[in-house]
Amino acid sequence: MTETINRPDVAAPSGTSDPSGRAQRWFDQLNAALRARDAETAAGLFETRSFWRDLVSLTWNMATVENPDGVADMLRHAVSTTAPGGFRLAEPAEDDGDVVTAWFTFETAAGRGKGLARLRGQGDELRCWTMMTALQELRGHEEPRGTRRPKGAEHGINPDRQTWSERREQERRELGESQQPYVLVVGGGQGGIALGARLRQLGVPSLVVDKHARPGDQWRSRYKSLCLHDPVWYDHLPYLKFPDNWPVFAPKDKIADWLEAYTSIMEVPWWGGTEVRDAAFDEAEGRWTVQAVRDGRAVTLRPTQLVLATGMSGKPNVPEIPGMEVFAGEQQHSSEHPGPDAYAGKRVVVIGSNNSAFDICGALWETGADVTMVQRSSTHIVKSDSLMEIGLGDLYSERALAAGVTTEKADLIFASIPYRIMHEFQIPLYDRIREKDRDFYQRLEAAGFQLDFGEDGSGLFMKYLRRASGYYIDVGAAELVADGKVGLAHGEVSHLTEDSVVLADGTALPADLIVYATGYGSMNGWAADLISPEVADRVGKCWGLGSDTAKDPGPWEGEQRNMWKPTAQEALWFHGGNLHQSRHYSLYLALQLKARYEQIDTPVYGQAEVHHTG
Amino acid sequence: MTETINRPDVAAPSGTSDPSGRAQRWFDQLNAALRARDAETAAGLFETRSFWRDLVSLTWNMATVENPDGVADMLRHAVSTTAPGGFRLAEPAEDDGDVVTAWFTFETAAGRGKGLARLRGQGDELRCWTMMTALQELRGHEEPRGTRRPKGAEHGINPDRQTWSERREQERRELGESQQPYVLVVGGGQGGIALGARLRQLGVPSLVVDKHARPGDQWRSRYKSLCLHDPVWYDHLPYLKFPDNWPVFAPKDKIADWLEAYTSIMEVPWWGGTEVRDAAFDEAEGRWTVQAVRDGRAVTLRPTQLVLATGMSGKPNVPEIPGMEVFAGEQQHSSEHPGPDAYAGKRVVVIGSNNSAFDICGALWETGADVTMVQRSSTHIVKSDSLMEIGLGDLYSERALAAGVTTEKADLIFASIPYRIMHEFQIPLYDRIREKDRDFYQRLEAAGFQLDFGEDGSGLFMKYLRRASGYYIDVGAAELVADGKVGLAHGEVSHLTEDSVVLADGTALPADLIVYATGYGSMNGWAADLISPEVADRVGKCWGLGSDTAKDPGPWEGEQRNMWKPTAQEALWFHGGNLHQSRHYSLYLALQLKARYEQIDTPVYGQAEVHHTG
Repeated sequence: MTETINRPDVAAPSGTSDPSGRAQRWFDQLNAALRARDAETAAGLFETRSFWRDLVSLTWNMATVENPDGVADMLRHAVSTTAPGGFRLAEPAEDDGDVVTAWFTFETAAGRGKGLARLRGQGDELRCWTMMTALQELRGHEEPRGTRRPKGAEHGINPDRQTWSERREQERRELGESQQPYVLVVGGGQGGIALGARLRQLGVPSLVVDKHARPGDQWRSRYKSLCLHDPVWYDHLPYLKFPDNWPVFAPKDKIADWLEAYTSIMEVPWWGGTEVRDAAFDEAEGRWTVQAVRDGRAVTLRPTQLVLATGMSGKPNVPEIPGMEVFAGEQQHSSEHPGPDAYAGKRVVVIGSNNSAFDICGALWETGADVTMVQRSSTHIVKSDSLMEIGLGDLYSERALAAGVTTEKADLIFASIPYRIMHEFQIPLYDRIREKDRDFYQRLEAAGFQLDFGEDGSGLFMKYLRRASGYYIDVGAAELVADGKVGLAHGEVSHLTEDSVVLADGTALPADLIVYATGYGSMNGWAADLISPEVADRVGKCWGLGSDTAKDPGPWEGEQRNMWKPTAQEALWFHGGNLHQSRHYSLYLALQLKARYEQIDTPVYGQAEVHHTG
Repeated sequence: MTETINRPDVAAPSGTSDPSGRAQRWFDQLNAALRARDAETAAGLFETRSFWRDLVSLTWNMATVENPDGVADMLRHAVSTTAPGGFRLAEPAEDDGDVVTAWFTFETAAGRGKGLARLRGQGDELRCWTMMTALQELRGHEEPRGTRRPKGAEHGINPDRQTWSERREQERRELGESQQPYVLVVGGGQGGIALGARLRQLGVPSLVVDKHARPGDQWRSRYKSLCLHDPVWYDHLPYLKFPDNWPVFAPKDKIADWLEAYTSIMEVPWWGGTEVRDAAFDEAEGRWTVQAVRDGRAVTLRPTQLVLATGMSGKPNVPEIPGMEVFAGEQQHSSEHPGPDAYAGKRVVVIGSNNSAFDICGALWETGADVTMVQRSSTHIVKSDSLMEIGLGDLYSERALAAGVTTEKADLIFASIPYRIMHEFQIPLYDRIREKDRDFYQRLEAAGFQLDFGEDGSGLFMKYLRRASGYYIDVGAAELVADGKVGLAHGEVSHLTEDSVVLADGTALPADLIVYATGYGSMNGWAADLISPEVADRVGKCWGLGSDTAKDPGPWEGEQRNMWKPTAQEALWFHGGNLHQSRHYSLYLALQLKARYEQIDTPVYGQAEVHHTG
């Protein structure tokens, strides 16, 4: 190509108004302090009120430290163990007049990371407000993707050639029998499958087991009207994105088929029809003995690492109610509800007023059942369209994609907001939503529905992160309550009679079917069942931030309890959450497992204390 | 964001050295002539020796016209029927000093297209050398993708709600029974599946049928060492790309699993276990009557359009050889060869010296068979690595992707080279390959192997496009021949004895197994079997360009005969080829079928004459 005109030089000027230059100079100072192993000087680059969130790069943990003191403490550990350095701007920084936002890369002794920093201050007097560092790959163990992808065909001549299908067949025969997996993932839903795909890519011998017959059966077995409540841009799995014809809110059976196809395509070793009965960690041997039954046959597995991916919502909560044994109709936990078809013309009482309760009430009403919802405490409701537009649109939408915010970038942006101040980012969004849907909320309240927006008005995501309950993403059923088409009652259930639900105030609700949409326990309930109550108590509850709001008691943790990070029980891990979390956090869990498999030193900084047992 | 420095203006200057401005001014002249319905003036914008290749946008055909006369003839048709216009640069044009390359968009009465033009000349005296126009979508029938994707969940309340799985189940019950498909695709390999996916997206009721039980079985049933000979970047299907961990050369069973997963994910209506016995077109009714047997049960299908996607290589060619009935060992066409396992220690004669012959010889030799290849005519061999690097690398590779050449862009670039001059682009590449692998070719020739590079030295792609035979992409087995490990004999087969293959020169090759790697007939052989010899003769042979080289007799056609475009038999179409063609050309075939389904007027320009019958 002949260029007859020299393009004007558009390189960054060196003046103080150039955000890229300013950001890189801040990183240079950080690099110099880290090279000098001077944690205090490095910490002096942070604002008095500041946050550094690390995802297994400096800490081999998920940990958020606060303020220069906290940063100094973490860096004292890091300079002598994980040796971070080489912080370098990855793309032009942006200055919104208040905050300089800088994407960067960095290295540690073990690997390479990416991060996002928010810097503030005049000229070159920048100080860091928020910093997020995330390990992306281990040096020498990079994933075989893109230019590193496998060749597939083995060219040349090899009399001992084994084909791909012969190798796969051999693995199927041997894995869990003569060959033990290094990692056993109990639970083969979206979380187990995403983690299994990452471990496969990383070459960690793993096995994912599930009691259902086929991948996706967890979704297939749910009530038939169920669709994802999160939109497609938020829901991709690792490596293989949904095609761009994928519906915004995928129906459950379509997601199920996707999970099944994905498991095949990503070659996730997945056993169906397998129930884990018992697991015990042998301290001396440093591995687990897991007793399972596969298609009716007893199997003993000996993994080194055990991951519980049994559903972040834990075990179904079914309340103990006097008279349950005398009630003559049907009783189901929402997780067992088959859908409305059998209940046309029946009287149904749904206990609870969150997502599942609304979905089930809506489908039952559509089918011609006589439905009453029992609200026991206030619920946060947000219309799906508003959530998409205002709550998620900047990060996960066609609009975000068009603006260059890929799924991967959106995940890191979301992860870069420290949990301690995330509500401050969320409250204004929900103020907008409250305003936008004012009429809707007024009609619901007029119908007697008790609404909330979280104790601090921070809305859906904070409720999800704090307690994973207490909300409904409205896809239409709220109108049935507002219109009185679905009946509404309030209060706790006092007892059941042969044919009715009696509330604390004496109200009797005649019923042929009672659906307990009463939520789930903590994931460590699974640990109590599978391992022991002692181990469950030792690791303590899962999920929650310690925000000291309803169902999320303090003290403050800074991260979600026990999720994707080392627990108080050696070699026991918890994985779960929505598709977004299954996608993003499976990376960090997989890297931690890979590092241990490769016997890379993984000194953990800031192991969380346990405050809340089973 | 506050910008304290104005960015220098980098907009295109208006001088003659700006390729974008020059290209747009050329398009402006074209637009003006088309608006004036002045085909002659428009044709005057073309060089004396020039080409316009149209993919169903102006012609409702695949047609290449040549020189101002040809352009004028096509445009006289187009201005009064398809009304092209609005040609507009889609991204900055590039000038390599000789040719200005310009991507553009345009519109027609029915839809929107993309194209690529190569312009030459000084200043604004540009004339067009090559032009390619390709329809991308029909106005009012845009695919539901991206911002148009379906919502999935049906929000709101609807007592007649049908879930996704209920709809799918109903379709499965009714399609081909109470509901007739508009399009029947016979053959459910990669071609049928890709077309089925596109028709599904476009909302054309379609059914893909195949005699195999499961999607991918066409690959599963082949010899076990088979891997794709084309690299991954060339092989994507529409809508859903292989993940970036996909091997460069996928093993056949992995591709098979992908096709099966893809069929499920894309919701392609696919019947396995279905053999089509007979098809007849009812002129009066304007639709086909197709007799099929599905899982042993007779089914009559009444599609309006019939697509044969039964493998572009057509029916296996098994030569008639005296003595075939007295030979006591096994005889197989290469398509029936199960792989080497049963033949360790056996004497095998493989008739043929192209891809399948080499693959089969290599695998047999590895397993310990005594193998002799019979070369009947010269073969073009190119090492896989050289083909990837020199033949494909600019369009289909990680390097191409990094340079912004997406699969979609590469497909259009490849399609923009007129077939008439494509060999001129190819010859220099194969000169480089010949030089690079000179030692390799010398060793093969020293071993007595007869090599060629095509009659004009244009190598692999031209052989593929002209005759789809006569080559081997070497993945190692050529060394066995060069080393004499696989025996080599020459000439036609004279006859078989009880235990040997006797060649024309009297050489007797003892054999326990004879593999006929003798290629395939033309696709219209399927039409003869399924429809009638008369219809097969009426449409004539498929494939080939009319290059007047071996196995591709003239006269010149300009496009591949009968592929993806209207044939001489109303409502009969042929679809096939490698994964690249299955992906790219399925778009144009699908748009033609969709237009007919929507009763959009589709006046065909330049219907090819038929010169070669069955």
